[in-house]
Amino acid sequence: MSVTRMSTLFLRTLREDPADAELPGHKLLVRAGYIRRAAPGIYSWLPLGLKVLAKVEQIVREEMDAIGAQEVRFPALLPREPYEASGRWTDYGDNLFRLKDRRENDMLLGPTHEEMFTLTVKDLYSSYKDLPLALYQIQIKYRDEARPRAGLLRGREFIMKDSYSFDVDDAGLEAAYQRHRDAYVKIFDRLGFDYVIVKATSGAMGGSASEEFLAISDVGEDTFVRCDESGYAANVEAVQVPQAPDVDPDIVAAIPPATDLDTSDTPTIETLVNCLNDLYPRSDGRAWTGADTLKNVVVMLAYPDGHREPLVIGLPGDRQVDPKRLEAQVAPAEVEEFTEADFAAYPALVKGYIGPVAMGPNAGLAEGDARRLRFLVDPTIARGSEWVTGANKHGVHVAHLVYGRDFEADGLIHAAQVRDGDPSPDGAGELRTARGIEMGHIFQLGRKYADALGLKVLDENGKLVTVTMGSYGVGVSRAVAAVAESNHDEAGLVWPRNLAPFDVHLVATGKDEAIFEAAAGFADELAAAGLDVLYDDRPKVSPGVKFKDAEIVGVPTIVVVGRGLAEGTVEIKDRRSGERRAVPVDALVSEVTREVRGQE
Amino acid sequence: MSVTRMSTLFLRTLREDPADAELPGHKLLVRAGYIRRAAPGIYSWLPLGLKVLAKVEQIVREEMDAIGAQEVRFPALLPREPYEASGRWTDYGDNLFRLKDRRENDMLLGPTHEEMFTLTVKDLYSSYKDLPLALYQIQIKYRDEARPRAGLLRGREFIMKDSYSFDVDDAGLEAAYQRHRDAYVKIFDRLGFDYVIVKATSGAMGGSASEEFLAISDVGEDTFVRCDESGYAANVEAVQVPQAPDVDPDIVAAIPPATDLDTSDTPTIETLVNCLNDLYPRSDGRAWTGADTLKNVVVMLAYPDGHREPLVIGLPGDRQVDPKRLEAQVAPAEVEEFTEADFAAYPALVKGYIGPVAMGPNAGLAEGDARRLRFLVDPTIARGSEWVTGANKHGVHVAHLVYGRDFEADGLIHAAQVRDGDPSPDGAGELRTARGIEMGHIFQLGRKYADALGLKVLDENGKLVTVTMGSYGVGVSRAVAAVAESNHDEAGLVWPRNLAPFDVHLVATGKDEAIFEAAAGFADELAAAGLDVLYDDRPKVSPGVKFKDAEIVGVPTIVVVGRGLAEGTVEIKDRRSGERRAVPVDALVSEVTREVRGQE
Repeated sequence: MSVTRMSTLFLRTLREDPADAELPGHKLLVRAGYIRRAAPGIYSWLPLGLKVLAKVEQIVREEMDAIGAQEVRFPALLPREPYEASGRWTDYGDNLFRLKDRRENDMLLGPTHEEMFTLTVKDLYSSYKDLPLALYQIQIKYRDEARPRAGLLRGREFIMKDSYSFDVDDAGLEAAYQRHRDAYVKIFDRLGFDYVIVKATSGAMGGSASEEFLAISDVGEDTFVRCDESGYAANVEAVQVPQAPDVDPDIVAAIPPATDLDTSDTPTIETLVNCLNDLYPRSDGRAWTGADTLKNVVVMLAYPDGHREPLVIGLPGDRQVDPKRLEAQVAPAEVEEFTEADFAAYPALVKGYIGPVAMGPNAGLAEGDARRLRFLVDPTIARGSEWVTGANKHGVHVAHLVYGRDFEADGLIHAAQVRDGDPSPDGAGELRTARGIEMGHIFQLGRKYADALGLKVLDENGKLVTVTMGSYGVGVSRAVAAVAESNHDEAGLVWPRNLAPFDVHLVATGKDEAIFEAAAGFADELAAAGLDVLYDDRPKVSPGVKFKDAEIVGVPTIVVVGRGLAEGTVEIKDRRSGERRAVPVDALVSEVTREVRGQE
Repeated sequence: MSVTRMSTLFLRTLREDPADAELPGHKLLVRAGYIRRAAPGIYSWLPLGLKVLAKVEQIVREEMDAIGAQEVRFPALLPREPYEASGRWTDYGDNLFRLKDRRENDMLLGPTHEEMFTLTVKDLYSSYKDLPLALYQIQIKYRDEARPRAGLLRGREFIMKDSYSFDVDDAGLEAAYQRHRDAYVKIFDRLGFDYVIVKATSGAMGGSASEEFLAISDVGEDTFVRCDESGYAANVEAVQVPQAPDVDPDIVAAIPPATDLDTSDTPTIETLVNCLNDLYPRSDGRAWTGADTLKNVVVMLAYPDGHREPLVIGLPGDRQVDPKRLEAQVAPAEVEEFTEADFAAYPALVKGYIGPVAMGPNAGLAEGDARRLRFLVDPTIARGSEWVTGANKHGVHVAHLVYGRDFEADGLIHAAQVRDGDPSPDGAGELRTARGIEMGHIFQLGRKYADALGLKVLDENGKLVTVTMGSYGVGVSRAVAAVAESNHDEAGLVWPRNLAPFDVHLVATGKDEAIFEAAAGFADELAAAGLDVLYDDRPKVSPGVKFKDAEIVGVPTIVVVGRGLAEGTVEIKDRRSGERRAVPVDALVSEVTREVRGQE
């Protein structure tokens, strides 16, 4: 390998945090000269950053090649038609960068490439004998995020490895999915992440089974749940809360008829519960709590085609709607606030006193009637359970309102907040929540794209069958950010050896020409031993500044050539542990090589 | 290295030429499964193509690293502001892909990155001690070409290596330019091109000295000239025809006064020359030719800011205006046809009888007068020379009109066609024209971008000085196309070893299981010897089809395992020469290795 000299390296470390960085890893990537912002969510890679990026790419490439996936590369600038055929031209909404070329043709910057892969396979292949097939690319993608965040973690231009599997039947897809899952385990093991594999929703991609690989991180945007007893793990969007069992009919039979309660000035759950405890104490002495009330939350759904429609969600009063769970449930619609103007347009909705009887199947309005409000309830609402809820009259609630006796819903919705201690969907224990960064996502897409774009092959009997597909992604540029977020300390970055921009950072200190001469010799020897060496040869920079730079840059092994040289020693410092030890000059190369290779 | 099996390779060769391909190399790249069109001027890279592309990238990267240039990577999606500051947001005209993000910010897809490099260096560096610096990237670029052509040769999305040098003074720039020039010579030598280095114009890039590296090719879009005697070579746009020496005043004094000639129905040079020879024969008996006439060509210049202005070009009647030379002279304006409506708007221009006296300084109109027509003449028009030209009256020409006596021009323009046999600008001999593909371009940009974007550093005396820059490009994806155009025969592609997707293409023929077993063993042995092997293991494909595929794919060494195996031999075929020879099975690995390594 070679020696890079700090005196000529295009690098300036910064003492101050960049104004536009929130997360510690992001701040350090900018301060240590790895990346630089070009526009919101759009970054330039400086020499150090590009070296780390190339290492991530190489790990991903090796593991994809190892499962027989073949590398290709599609354009980033694409014609509209295939995305029109799949529906994504519209479904992607504002997240899609759209543009026109000089001939006024509609084009887009690819967010992912299902369409292009599908069409190319259709173009080349025609028989079941051609399958299975897995293709991948490591390529630039674009999403016009509303809130580009945290540097490379959620960029608008980013690098992804996306791969696609093509199989003639479900068993083939299952096997392809499993091969990718195994490859991803190897990739994330090599990247040195603390990660978890969780069940996931498939979002705008369509398809069925899917899992995410999350780097466990307090700064992650994703919340996931785990059940320690069973090993169940899911992205919070994907948690399927089990349907509560029906209440015993004998108990339901004993529930008094629904009764209106005068509850003036109780537009919130808290004011309602206080009012109930003040004016309507229960005979058994138990206090009313939010869990006894049915909260009906109304939102406006905005569909990509411009259509807007209200949705009312019924859930226990002690739970909130989780915005991300709701978004996942209603995609591709976006969730908007239900405004005062919207309330005015739907007089059946009495703000603060909304009740199920005005909605869904209960309102006596035909399906398709524009006034009919869609009403979905949380799965914890058991059939036969009784509730205090709005009576659709200002200042009035209704008690003893029984689900299945007094009201019905249009269906279930998994949009309520999941909390620590909630039962695991597999019945095996309690859930714990934590945060993570989505680093990989594997989908069983199924036939959605093959159907939309007509990808069929002849099967063994000469019959045309639609191909079934999988789609698999790794956030390559995001991985650099995620590693930085989980590998740093106060003083700077601390790269795992696999991804470090250099194997060793050699620092020459002082003003003694002999030290610099010796250090240059060591740098060459280390390079000759196959190591990639960063040599801080700057003649007029103080040792303090050089040490600070070495700490922030974060190469795992630091060698200091200084005063000890007179006694024939140099110092080896482990960046992560901070341990230092003097080694005889003769042993330097073997010691450093052992450290670098041993831990690889 | 490894073995790739044809039975699973994502490859289908095509028998028919693709409908949208013009050039033989382009047709073969598509037919042999290297690339595929996604949209006009936008291509997908299939596995074979991507392998060749990666080899080109690697050669370029090694030679850039060797001159100390440091690799970085800038985004393709960029904000408007820096390009506004440099003027290129407007100057690039329709060639720039522009778009708006979800917040209505103007953005663009980068055509080249002078601005971003300049701003980043400004951000990091502040002293002359930081320089010299050279940075490069291998990255995707975008230009919305009016006529995307010839596949990868002129794409709208393409891969370029662009690098930039930063120096404190002109001597530094000169040295940086020379280092790049030397590196380019090495790159193009390694790519195996027959190329020529020519003087070039700098087009929309600004700046002064520049040279192009052209792959010599009959299908090239660029015309260049060479003088065998002196070694002078220039892109035809850059040829500076020497100014003709003034005519001896004694000769001028003897020229009769200008005289109108009745020349009805002579709107073309040909009809005019015929008329002159019929009605106005010369006293010395010499026939009139086009070279005796002054042709005045009028065009409309359209500037990026929307401004439009006519230009009249005076040149000898036996020369055409060369559209590319003219474009280079008037950039960033584009050249449009002068329409009938335009003629109506400028009544001084009598179509077919335009003469200099109505134009430029001769028309008696003040500078800035909208009716004043800009008039530039070809450098071969000598002061004191006499001409037959239009009299600005329908059906009338004028003879004995003398440049400098009877008319003046606003200046010179180098827009006339250059022809074989024209004198070399260095006075050393005659020019020969040929065609080439622009593969590399090196510019001394100077201070244009540093000025526009404020890139200054402190010099040795503590004074702020503007940095001077060079800009250097290699068409990386274009190189794949150019190699294909110059390395093929009737049967298919013929890759140089440096760029071939595989080292050796091993073909197993027949139905004998023993042959396939032996061939698989040879493939493994060749791979173990460090070669990258494509093994055609397809069991039910005829030898004829396999041979055809091997020819079109174009791997330089083909090994055929077939009937000879019974006698202990296999056949080695050289794809380029067509030579075949039987070698003993034992010698296969050493023979193939020698061929592959020997010619590398």
